[in-house]
Amino acid sequence: MTETTKPCIICVAITGSVPTKANNPALPVTIDEQLESTHEAFEAGASIVHAHVRNADETPTSDPEKFARLKEGLEKHCPGMVIQFSTGGRSGAGTERGGMLPLRPDMASLSVGSNNFPTRVYENPPDLVDWLAAEMRKYAVKPEIEAFDASHIFQAVAMWRDGRIPDTPYIQFVMGVKNAMPVDKPVFDFYVETVKRLVPDAEWCAAGIGPGQITVNEWSVAAGGHART
Amino acid sequence: MTETTKPCIICVAITGSVPTKANNPALPVTIDEQLESTHEAFEAGASIVHAHVRNADETPTSDPEKFARLKEGLEKHCPGMVIQFSTGGRSGAGTERGGMLPLRPDMASLSVGSNNFPTRVYENPPDLVDWLAAEMRKYAVKPEIEAFDASHIFQAVAMWRDGRIPDTPYIQFVMGVKNAMPVDKPVFDFYVETVKRLVPDAEWCAAGIGPGQITVNEWSVAAGGHART
Ligand SMILES: [Zn+2]
Ligand SMILES: [Zn+2]
Ligand SMILES: [Zn+2]
Ligand SMILES: [Zn+2]
Repeated sequence: MTETTKPCIICVAITGSVPTKANNPALPVTIDEQLESTHEAFEAGASIVHAHVRNADETPTSDPEKFARLKEGLEKHCPGMVIQFSTGGRSGAGTERGGMLPLRPDMASLSVGSNNFPTRVYENPPDLVDWLAAEMRKYAVKPEIEAFDASHIFQAVAMWRDGRIPDTPYIQFVMGVKNAMPVDKPVFDFYVETVKRLVPDAEWCAAGIGPGQITVNEWSVAAGGHART
Repeated sequence: MTETTKPCIICVAITGSVPTKANNPALPVTIDEQLESTHEAFEAGASIVHAHVRNADETPTSDPEKFARLKEGLEKHCPGMVIQFSTGGRSGAGTERGGMLPLRPDMASLSVGSNNFPTRVYENPPDLVDWLAAEMRKYAVKPEIEAFDASHIFQAVAMWRDGRIPDTPYIQFVMGVKNAMPVDKPVFDFYVETVKRLVPDAEWCAAGIGPGQITVNEWSVAAGGHART
């Protein structure tokens, strides 16, 4: 398949872990709202759903029971859609973050390094990273590597080379997080070159946080990557 | 001054925080041993000393009293040498790490982001980074930014632009730390380009950890940077 005909995968990130209905009344928070919102995106062409779940008070959670209900609904309403669960650190601590992996979603996010967030350290200690990767292998869940910084790409490659990540890595560049990596075109280009140099077959996508979202989507699609909305 | 006549600053890192006499019997651990070792490097041409201090049992410490004795000795034995104290996270927790800054060393290391180390997270939360930078401004200590990853360069630039770092940043690229950035030439080149693009006047140096030391020194000197031995 040539670059020009390669389909662009659109990944819809419903809900996330930070915004609340106070920020945006349309934010899908309950499982029913999430299903409705994902269904709309699915009809519009999104093929991956990146999902977080929330408690009744809108705080993020890693509750496997909520993830199970979401997965059941998605399989019914959006058949064939790739389901990706977040194992990100805002929704739980330590191994709680991987408590939904036994549900065998198609994919799960995997942070492989640590970095600063706006007000704190995003902690992904090496032993937790290895445990999450092992759980993903055990339950045949494909990781989406969340690269918040350049070294995270190298870490993903090292884990792929030694088998901790069994298949060609799928890497998402995350830009625009305060105190981590800004939205910067030369960095984006360097990320793409680095992936091509180290794992020519790897698929990658890019997400811009907040005001950088559209910019990063445009860079990503133009460079042959996928887009997270 | 042209590139070719620009003097190359050699920074000698005595002791560090990790090795012990069991690893290398010649390791300078006591203040007297550190003075002797620094003096030799000074005579051989080193112009900056990057110093950690140790307890009697060789464990790293941030004890200001030990740093004071070291500084006094260095001023006597190596007059004119630039004294740089480590505020790195292996030697203490939280604000302890900056307890020696009131001694007004010429420089101090400053980590501006977080990353993984071989077995743990190297935690530099945003509020601690800001506190250390504020102490350095208060006591007129020039920071050496320790860039363990690409975003740390951007963070240093952001801090310089908003005045948290008052003078042109001095940035050290640290490569070869397991689970952080490997020794990789395209990354090195990208680091140099990024610094030149964002702060053309900035001075920078590079340190390779362990077996990458000589390689990184050679890259650094060839590219117009300084070298940490
Ligand atoms: Zn997410
Ligand atoms: Zn994606
Ligand atoms: Zn040091
Ligand atoms: Zn140096």
